Amino acid sequence: MKPRPRPELEALQPYRTSDASSGRILLHANENPYPPPEHIVDEMYALARKHGLNRYPDGGSELAAELSAYAGVPPEWIWIGDGSNEVLLQACLAYGGPGRKALVFEPTYRMHHRQAAMAGTEVVEAHREHDFRLDAYKATEAIEAEQPDIVFVCSPNNPTGTTSPIDDLRRIASSAPGLVVIDEAYHEFCGETFVGELAAFPNVLIVRTLSKAFRLAAVRLGYGIAAPELLTELARVRMPYAQSSFTQAAGLVALRNRAELLRAVPAVIAERERLAETLGRTEGIDVSPSGANFVMFRWARAGELIDALAARGIVVRDFRHLPGCESRLRVTVGTEDENDEFLDVVRTTAN
Amino acid sequence: MKPRPRPELEALQPYRTSDASSGRILLHANENPYPPPEHIVDEMYALARKHGLNRYPDGGSELAAELSAYAGVPPEWIWIGDGSNEVLLQACLAYGGPGRKALVFEPTYRMHHRQAAMAGTEVVEAHREHDFRLDAYKATEAIEAEQPDIVFVCSPNNPTGTTSPIDDLRRIASSAPGLVVIDEAYHEFCGETFVGELAAFPNVLIVRTLSKAFRLAAVRLGYGIAAPELLTELARVRMPYAQSSFTQAAGLVALRNRAELLRAVPAVIAERERLAETLGRTEGIDVSPSGANFVMFRWARAGELIDALAARGIVVRDFRHLPGCESRLRVTVGTEDENDEFLDVVRTTAN
Repeated sequence: MKPRPRPELEALQPYRTSDASSGRILLHANENPYPPPEHIVDEMYALARKHGLNRYPDGGSELAAELSAYAGVPPEWIWIGDGSNEVLLQACLAYGGPGRKALVFEPTYRMHHRQAAMAGTEVVEAHREHDFRLDAYKATEAIEAEQPDIVFVCSPNNPTGTTSPIDDLRRIASSAPGLVVIDEAYHEFCGETFVGELAAFPNVLIVRTLSKAFRLAAVRLGYGIAAPELLTELARVRMPYAQSSFTQAAGLVALRNRAELLRAVPAVIAERERLAETLGRTEGIDVSPSGANFVMFRWARAGELIDALAARGIVVRDFRHLPGCESRLRVTVGTEDENDEFLDVVRTTAN
Repeated sequence: MKPRPRPELEALQPYRTSDASSGRILLHANENPYPPPEHIVDEMYALARKHGLNRYPDGGSELAAELSAYAGVPPEWIWIGDGSNEVLLQACLAYGGPGRKALVFEPTYRMHHRQAAMAGTEVVEAHREHDFRLDAYKATEAIEAEQPDIVFVCSPNNPTGTTSPIDDLRRIASSAPGLVVIDEAYHEFCGETFVGELAAFPNVLIVRTLSKAFRLAAVRLGYGIAAPELLTELARVRMPYAQSSFTQAAGLVALRNRAELLRAVPAVIAERERLAETLGRTEGIDVSPSGANFVMFRWARAGELIDALAARGIVVRDFRHLPGCESRLRVTVGTEDENDEFLDVVRTTAN
């Protein structure tokens, strides 16, 4: 007798990350191409080793203090998770759930839809413009019509790179009757954040990660920023003893060395602009403006290109199957050499 | 405008772990008192360092292979989580949820009730006997009456230490109309497991951890064992990129060195028996038989004892507030010296 899973999950196919096992140049997962400098990694492992592995990890207050200093808010405005995905799921468990509604603006980060659905929340999809801008007027109209318990906005938006102006986010947050999650996973690459507005918006939860600008994708560390009254509710759906001692040590050392680690951000931005310009000059390629560490582009020859890239061991992310993203690929900004190789294949394919 | 949290979560107070900050001897969290040997820790960190921190962790297939060799099942019967708590939550999200019912036998591991509730599942509490045995006949009666979508059984049971005979678990699993979660977090300390029965029970999910016998509480690594058809449903509620590169490396190295790491198990069992016998010989103390790495006991002087222990920097877990556990404390098995100090305070308090 096989146990009966929740029928409403049937539509939720397991999330598959790209198969990059054969890849030589990995431009598919929006990772930072620069590993943290060795002396910082040494420091992370040295700090981690001070905690006996047989003992449960600390409660994370030191890490919250460092994150709060970086984000420019008091420590009680910080919520730590095993990757931003855990924070997003907890937000859905606390504020979504059965009989509740979440609104997403597609195309966007697919996990928002999934996490809301995992918590049993009904998900309503509104849409971005054809150029992927989020029209604030239409967004507030959708919010007023749907009265969602949770609104997700990703800025810069994954997978399109589109950044929403703070004014637009303010209008959206004002019109929402419930929680507004602003996913700022890539904010360091656009230099804009909603944090300065939080005091006026007790209904906004900003979600961020150390996987991108801080170069720590392997560590699985994310955080939320919001008014303490909002975060209190997340405590109800939190696991005891979250965040391993290594994750906490790596985060602490990364934040203490943030000036050095974030030096890679302008390098990534410069390469992003070079990628975007070079792609944009190629016959038939339409590039979406990006405030993140990746570039999405449309090309009738996307299929040809992806095969040619694969033959050279270069992996990018294929979005041709996604509604609104026809003929589109997303390339993560790599090192200068990696981007040169990528652009070389584009050039060859175009000719 | 403050967002409205789910009203059904209101009863769910944040889970608080004991405050052990002032503790010198930590006998409250069922940790293993022996850290892994230095050469094994060296090996863990060395393996972890091979993975660039800027890259997302591997998919975990190597770790699943090692876990499957340890558990004696094929790799596709293994499900990995950030601690057994994540596996338990995923089971509740996949098989519980709105309109569904979970059955727990109290007193037991409090997270089972919480995780079911987090997922929106209605939780029904049945009860163990006064001596904490789970009566299989009454359990099947409760299952037949309630028809729960999920049944939780913890064996050895936390916080009481009670082990359920395999025959009883088989009867319970046979009578359940849905998922049966058998929490075997402490199974190495009793030497019994339901794994050998799994082939006949496609509705059973065994949940385990590397926090106890494997001495890795800091690492947050747990796993589930079940038929692949059952695990498939968990994939729908899984986060992408779970388990940090360090967690995977630590788990791999621990499992490869399991003969050496598990050598501490008989030492812990011997000390548990000494604790139980010495406590049992003390006037007025009633000890519950334990198959785990802790001992629960009832004593009219529990309040006095806990204060005297605190004065010596010894932290144990207080269960006096828990229904059915009046006057009861739980002491984790420590090192021989730690247990001597604990027993010394018991002796002084008794006289």
